[in-house]
Amino acid sequence: MRALTFNGSFQYRTDYQAPRLIPSESLVRVRLAGICGTDLEVARGYMAFRGVPGHEFVGEVIDSARQDLVGKRVVGEINAGCGRASCRWCAASMQRHCPDRTVLGILGRDGAFADILSLPDENLIVVPDSVPDRLAVFTEPLAAAYEIFSQIHIPRDCSILVLGDGRLGALIALALTAEAYSPTLAGRHQEKLERLGALGLNTRLETELKSKFDYVVDCTGRGEGFRRAIGLVKPRGTIVLKSTAAASADLNLAPIVIDEISIVGSRCGLFAPALAAIASGKVNPAPLIDGEFPLSEWDSAFEAARQHSNFKILLRPS
Amino acid sequence: MRALTFNGSFQYRTDYQAPRLIPSESLVRVRLAGICGTDLEVARGYMAFRGVPGHEFVGEVIDSARQDLVGKRVVGEINAGCGRASCRWCAASMQRHCPDRTVLGILGRDGAFADILSLPDENLIVVPDSVPDRLAVFTEPLAAAYEIFSQIHIPRDCSILVLGDGRLGALIALALTAEAYSPTLAGRHQEKLERLGALGLNTRLETELKSKFDYVVDCTGRGEGFRRAIGLVKPRGTIVLKSTAAASADLNLAPIVIDEISIVGSRCGLFAPALAAIASGKVNPAPLIDGEFPLSEWDSAFEAARQHSNFKILLRPS
Repeated sequence: MRALTFNGSFQYRTDYQAPRLIPSESLVRVRLAGICGTDLEVARGYMAFRGVPGHEFVGEVIDSARQDLVGKRVVGEINAGCGRASCRWCAASMQRHCPDRTVLGILGRDGAFADILSLPDENLIVVPDSVPDRLAVFTEPLAAAYEIFSQIHIPRDCSILVLGDGRLGALIALALTAEAYSPTLAGRHQEKLERLGALGLNTRLETELKSKFDYVVDCTGRGEGFRRAIGLVKPRGTIVLKSTAAASADLNLAPIVIDEISIVGSRCGLFAPALAAIASGKVNPAPLIDGEFPLSEWDSAFEAARQHSNFKILLRPS
Repeated sequence: MRALTFNGSFQYRTDYQAPRLIPSESLVRVRLAGICGTDLEVARGYMAFRGVPGHEFVGEVIDSARQDLVGKRVVGEINAGCGRASCRWCAASMQRHCPDRTVLGILGRDGAFADILSLPDENLIVVPDSVPDRLAVFTEPLAAAYEIFSQIHIPRDCSILVLGDGRLGALIALALTAEAYSPTLAGRHQEKLERLGALGLNTRLETELKSKFDYVVDCTGRGEGFRRAIGLVKPRGTIVLKSTAAASADLNLAPIVIDEISIVGSRCGLFAPALAAIASGKVNPAPLIDGEFPLSEWDSAFEAARQHSNFKILLRPS
């Protein structure tokens, strides 16, 4: 099959071995995939990943022991747990924290930048017919935004800053707005801020921020962003840390203690609330799409994804 | 009056200007003071403090508009807010987060290593006759331990690691034990761990720790301790950060996000629960006292406080 592989460098292949059907997993033909910041990090050595990257996708089940899934259009949660009864994480449906998990296109499991992928049956969620591929492909990153609500309760009258005007920052600001919050989104790129402003978001240049916030969501993707977040949160405030920056941050911890700041690391989330938000039209990520490339043009696609002026770049395997 | 002053270096003086009575404050003759890690940090430039250090004390009110306080033995909360009605922190009795606060012996206010100090009347709490000076002087650091309970709820069946076998680590482990938790205290100093073990605490050499914990309280006082705490906490676990390490930590943030770790900065706490725990005998810090020096011998006292084999060193101004 066709696949983009990473083994220290990227290679587009047409002869890559397709996954075979194994018990309790389904084979999915990828219809559309998204390029995420993590995919760009993989190229810089994140998780020392080797194989087929890509974890944002919508596809069609082409083979499965679960006959009710075959032929269905699905999205899929990317963490596959060990499934052992003795695993407290798998037993609690928190496969995403199972210490022996694989993660689609990130850790020990080939991903979505290919014709076909394999995922556990239980990871797959059928996409309603009303949701087009171009929206369904946002389920995974939007689930990462909705994960915040499953971790902390944010009172409605609190001030919220989303720091970072990239893909994830935009989705988190849209999710907060959909849930009746009024976040401020701050970044460094005037052009993107104007685009996000046109979507109804309250945006600011990061350099123009003057007051502090009760909650700061760091989506900068840079270690430096965490330091900036500490400077922008009120005493007793909360920082939600979303950036899996591979780089180290030279950090003075004293302000965290003195101002009794809370920090909450936040990663993947459940798909159901995100897909529901897309299906209901509560969140519309369509304006964030800046390009769609066939998989064979992965190089141009990654180049576009690296451009600071772009939000989401999509890949079409076939 | 006699006072130990810091102005880039320490100086013991007998001619220091005693504080004068000002509205809404009381003058307190210091009976006994404790040396804290923060006092040692002050000597290294913490908060760029200038003046009389010292914030752990028990004393006697010698002058006050509050006649009911005069002659009483008191301890005192160390943060003095601006008191303005418009200050959300002062209005909520959280003077310790008022942005215009002074802090006894730490920020803009002379402290306890002197004959006499001044604090707002509202900061003072009368010490029951049954509590001797040598125990009452622990109220402030024990309040910092009890602050954890005011910030987060720790379920009884969770595993808790107190990282650091210093003064604060010992008090936090004693407080957790008093509140019916079963913490493990880990450190680097075999001799101190044996002393703490003799008090009934479950102790371990840090290098021998093998499993991870639901909660890790970092009391190491080192930036490096935070990195260690991240490695010792379970996914979705919580780190309580107590170390106001002036040093920077070279830190990879990715594990915080991937394992969705929460971090809670924790500083000063309310005195009432700590004093009550001492008065009831629920916490007995007496075995932690390793020396008591007259203020004039401050140099020997600080030297003793710097010794890793010692817990608490006390100073007697008069």
